[in-house]
Amino acid sequence: MTEKLKGQLHFLSEADKMKSIFRQTRLADRSRQENDAEHSWHFALTAMTLYEYCDIEGVDLDRVIKMALVHDLVEIYAGDTFAYDVKGNESKEEREKESASKLFSLLSAKQAAEYRSLWEEFDQMETPDAIYASAIDRLQSHHNIHLSGGYTWEKHEVTADKIYNRMKPVKTALPELWEFVEHTVNKGLEKGYIKPEVQD
Amino acid sequence: MTEKLKGQLHFLSEADKMKSIFRQTRLADRSRQENDAEHSWHFALTAMTLYEYCDIEGVDLDRVIKMALVHDLVEIYAGDTFAYDVKGNESKEEREKESASKLFSLLSAKQAAEYRSLWEEFDQMETPDAIYASAIDRLQSHHNIHLSGGYTWEKHEVTADKIYNRMKPVKTALPELWEFVEHTVNKGLEKGYIKPEVQD
Repeated sequence: MTEKLKGQLHFLSEADKMKSIFRQTRLADRSRQENDAEHSWHFALTAMTLYEYCDIEGVDLDRVIKMALVHDLVEIYAGDTFAYDVKGNESKEEREKESASKLFSLLSAKQAAEYRSLWEEFDQMETPDAIYASAIDRLQSHHNIHLSGGYTWEKHEVTADKIYNRMKPVKTALPELWEFVEHTVNKGLEKGYIKPEVQD
Repeated sequence: MTEKLKGQLHFLSEADKMKSIFRQTRLADRSRQENDAEHSWHFALTAMTLYEYCDIEGVDLDRVIKMALVHDLVEIYAGDTFAYDVKGNESKEEREKESASKLFSLLSAKQAAEYRSLWEEFDQMETPDAIYASAIDRLQSHHNIHLSGGYTWEKHEVTADKIYNRMKPVKTALPELWEFVEHTVNKGLEKGYIKPEVQD
């Protein structure tokens, strides 16, 4: 075997660690936290299933699916940072860049550049593909939290205004899904597991 | 929301059950069994990472990735059938067909037909996309069993001839990877967690 192929197999064995990186989101049945590998699969399947609602011009679904597959790989050495964790998000960029360099160095320069650029593009949320991908990434988590009876929102006392702010890409990319977002937030407010905006 | 969109969201919530369907394969660190959602993600990432070694004409990687995402969905109601379980494989086809009808009926006729046909094509292993997909599906499991120190092979007393037979699509689709298959089987024979062919 060539050194290149050995490096790719090593990369794929390191990727297995995604199955042990746990997110704040739980499975729909609340039984346990979801891991990065499962989330990436569910994100890709959601991108595929809801693509007909994508209202942004020029989105390439096949690229979005590839983004979904690689978007969390940098967490292998950087860990998961909860979306609403202000302090954790301050050091996230640096930690993830270091992790990306370490992980992608197992691949050839060409493949490393491809994977890194898919991740960076996703992270910057500027291109049509990245905006649709971000919307779906957030929608998948939101849907799972809703299905689990708001577990994560309740635990972290996430307020309605914060949820609406985080879900903005859905309004842009999949306007037909906004009614679903509103429905789920209203249900949370009604049941008490989402708190309204905190007034100082 | 339209009935169609409600059905798609229902489908995506049923898909969450893939995270609780456990396979015979374990994580690389042997800590627990791998589930269908994780496996589907790892399969798709492997298809993408090793595509340059694909030696079959006319393989469309984007379609293969979609196949990877949907290929195990029928296990939601049919359960996982271990590759070397002769009895379980006798009833597999019928159980999976029933499961497919139940799950895909949540989608519009057009989308249901798309997902069902990707799964059927994968299952029949005849088209270039399906042959490459099967090779990668098997390679991902094989790689994980190797990484876990042969746990599944040892537990089920899988012999070298059965492994080589199951891995045939790798020889066809990714001949450069055959050396890796031989290396892993030889290592298992040497360490004793793979038994040689049983002679009557």
